[in-house]
Amino acid sequence: MSDRLYHVDGELVPAEEATVSVDDRGFRYGDAAFETLRAYGGTVLDWAAHRERLEGTCDALSLEHGLSGSELRDRIDETLAANDLADAYVRLSISRGVQPGKLTPQPEVDPTVVVYAKPLPRGGFEGEPVWDGPATVRSVETRRIPDAALPSSAKTHNYLNGIIARAELEGEADEALLSDLEGNVAEGATSNLFFVRDGTVCTPTTDGDVLPGITRKTVLELARAGDLPVEEGSYGLADVLEADEAFLTNRTWELRPVASLDRVELGGGPVTDRLSRLYDERVENACY
Amino acid sequence: MSDRLYHVDGELVPAEEATVSVDDRGFRYGDAAFETLRAYGGTVLDWAAHRERLEGTCDALSLEHGLSGSELRDRIDETLAANDLADAYVRLSISRGVQPGKLTPQPEVDPTVVVYAKPLPRGGFEGEPVWDGPATVRSVETRRIPDAALPSSAKTHNYLNGIIARAELEGEADEALLSDLEGNVAEGATSNLFFVRDGTVCTPTTDGDVLPGITRKTVLELARAGDLPVEEGSYGLADVLEADEAFLTNRTWELRPVASLDRVELGGGPVTDRLSRLYDERVENACY
Repeated sequence: MSDRLYHVDGELVPAEEATVSVDDRGFRYGDAAFETLRAYGGTVLDWAAHRERLEGTCDALSLEHGLSGSELRDRIDETLAANDLADAYVRLSISRGVQPGKLTPQPEVDPTVVVYAKPLPRGGFEGEPVWDGPATVRSVETRRIPDAALPSSAKTHNYLNGIIARAELEGEADEALLSDLEGNVAEGATSNLFFVRDGTVCTPTTDGDVLPGITRKTVLELARAGDLPVEEGSYGLADVLEADEAFLTNRTWELRPVASLDRVELGGGPVTDRLSRLYDERVENACY
Repeated sequence: MSDRLYHVDGELVPAEEATVSVDDRGFRYGDAAFETLRAYGGTVLDWAAHRERLEGTCDALSLEHGLSGSELRDRIDETLAANDLADAYVRLSISRGVQPGKLTPQPEVDPTVVVYAKPLPRGGFEGEPVWDGPATVRSVETRRIPDAALPSSAKTHNYLNGIIARAELEGEADEALLSDLEGNVAEGATSNLFFVRDGTVCTPTTDGDVLPGITRKTVLELARAGDLPVEEGSYGLADVLEADEAFLTNRTWELRPVASLDRVELGGGPVTDRLSRLYDERVENACY
């Protein structure tokens, strides 16, 4: 860990010495966009999808960083190579950088671009999952920020909503499940939720206040390609509690079964297992 | 400007060299509390009120920073002295610092404490206001984040809600006026709103999604002490547009008249002027 390198504003620097100005708007305001990516065998999975969502986030923030997709991709690849990483967690952050001391964002941006990377063993066919076990999940009082206040499709450094949700768990669960203001189940603090009901793969619709996870999208594609019935809808907690199977998705967890929700046992099952296997195959085909 | 000093984690450092780790949760997540303060004649106005609100913010974030009020105050005073500042803008930020790579906040906190300071001439009796003129204000589409998603009384580094609101202005106004999800007027991106109707001083209630501004509270106290009728309530834009006078409050602007809202001329007036004079007197008595 101690000799890891990060990529900060175009240069590889030791992680311990990687800093940003205290005047950086990323620090002052969380005024930044990010992506969490996964590299397998040295290849970033679904770069195009990440790049597209990142641009969507930057559009939502009126943040014109001026870097091309290939420039960003090069920095990620350089970071992986410099750290001699094949299977890795990667985070790409772009902040609005330092601007004169006003809240109003200025059009002239000198962005701060940070690439973080650390080893993350591959699960899949050959390895163990990165998670210790199926997730214990609790529903929390904290409500998902509505799209009208912060665009739900934007992945930003304003992450206190999820942090406060996680703090509610007081260490007694792995993931916090947030509902929206109307009481519909939205998403986990760092994950999307799926559940299986009478053979149908269900997940909260991104028409609601839900981040369009890239792993979420892949799982939906895999389910449809595998002729599994799929439904994106609006659900209450009771719908999930009555499910036959449930799992969470994100880049690092991939598919993670839900052991329990609010102490009600759920667990994975044949559909979760099948989708996990299809996901592993997809990683295999895309990156090796 | 170029030889200013900031106070970072217990040390005075040149502002240009003041940094935080890219792994600081303040940068990664905006996981930090802050206060904007004002010093007049070398004395911080209303320190006790700022300290109290800061503690409220930290409680909302489950952030136990372990620093006493006097330690924090000492750092502010040291920063003012080191910069030879009497009339100044001061920002105090406390982030959760660096923690292992998980979103869930850990109880063991090594906080990052930053004191920013820069000269800000006093308005009041002797000087000019810090603002160029009365504020042009526009209502925006972006809605104030509801209390159920992020506690409205918490002043945090998650400031994108206000930034997106300001970006909507496209440079054509000074301040963005946000309404809540129900359409009630809430507050400006960095200010509280007051308006005067038939002699009554009105402002949106902090029972709604409104930050309890310290200048706001002072103005209410001054109005009550001056036997002006006061009302904290729920108002629509139409109520404000029909007002006789309107003004914004925050630490740096103090009281700033609203020139216009959505191109409708409002302006200050005798009540705004009187409250501004009372505010100047209060600063005079408190700090000199």
